[in-house]
Amino acid sequence: MDQRISFVTLAVGDVARTHAFYVGGLGWVPSTYVEGEVLMIQVGPRLMLSLWDRAAFEAEVGPIASGDGVPPITLAHNVATREEVDGILLRAEEIGAGPLSGGQERDWGGYTGYFADPDGYRWEIAYNPGPIGEVVLP
Amino acid sequence: MDQRISFVTLAVGDVARTHAFYVGGLGWVPSTYVEGEVLMIQVGPRLMLSLWDRAAFEAEVGPIASGDGVPPITLAHNVATREEVDGILLRAEEIGAGPLSGGQERDWGGYTGYFADPDGYRWEIAYNPGPIGEVVLP
Repeated sequence: MDQRISFVTLAVGDVARTHAFYVGGLGWVPSTYVEGEVLMIQVGPRLMLSLWDRAAFEAEVGPIASGDGVPPITLAHNVATREEVDGILLRAEEIGAGPLSGGQERDWGGYTGYFADPDGYRWEIAYNPGPIGEVVLP
Repeated sequence: MDQRISFVTLAVGDVARTHAFYVGGLGWVPSTYVEGEVLMIQVGPRLMLSLWDRAAFEAEVGPIASGDGVPPITLAHNVATREEVDGILLRAEEIGAGPLSGGQERDWGGYTGYFADPDGYRWEIAYNPGPIGEVVLP
């Protein structure tokens, strides 16, 4: 098994709401959209983000752990400057993302902040000046 | 905000156990490993998988929703044939992954099965003969 991820799939409560956020709000271009079922967006050279109706997810994968609190995952979107971090967080706020955590300096030398998509999935917007940060930038 | 994911971060209960699974079991090569804190593995041309100590995750992102059930996310690893799906699921079983769902034909025309990593994160091993499946293959 090569060290590759091909899809990241997140269970979402309302695919139309998710579409309004990622396509309407962020302006991302879907590869596939089936109303009420799934929205797929290409998010890397060989990588898809699949936002899948929660009921269909549970039918195939199993009942999801629920309760108060955040999902045990974050997705990061890395950029080349602190200013881009702040700009994207501002844009996310404008399209209704929340809650947000404003950009801050991190112990490891970067500068990052978070916003939540409509299902609470956290996106970290990150400036990482180290070697790992360089690997992930376009 | 471009449609890009740079990092997928999963909160894990025991980073050493996670290292034993991904590095010891699957043979993946870390980009970074800090005992008890974080394991990072490059899983795409500009993509990192970050397996981060749960306590540190919660300190930065917030308390995680817990309870019975599966995490609301899956990662997929796509391959070019049904036989590779079966072979990887067998290998996952050998290194202690579980629970597993054996390969099966799916309504959308593919053939997939799942295994769980030590924290219950599901990996779907997928053969997808459609256009989206071609996009994600190396």
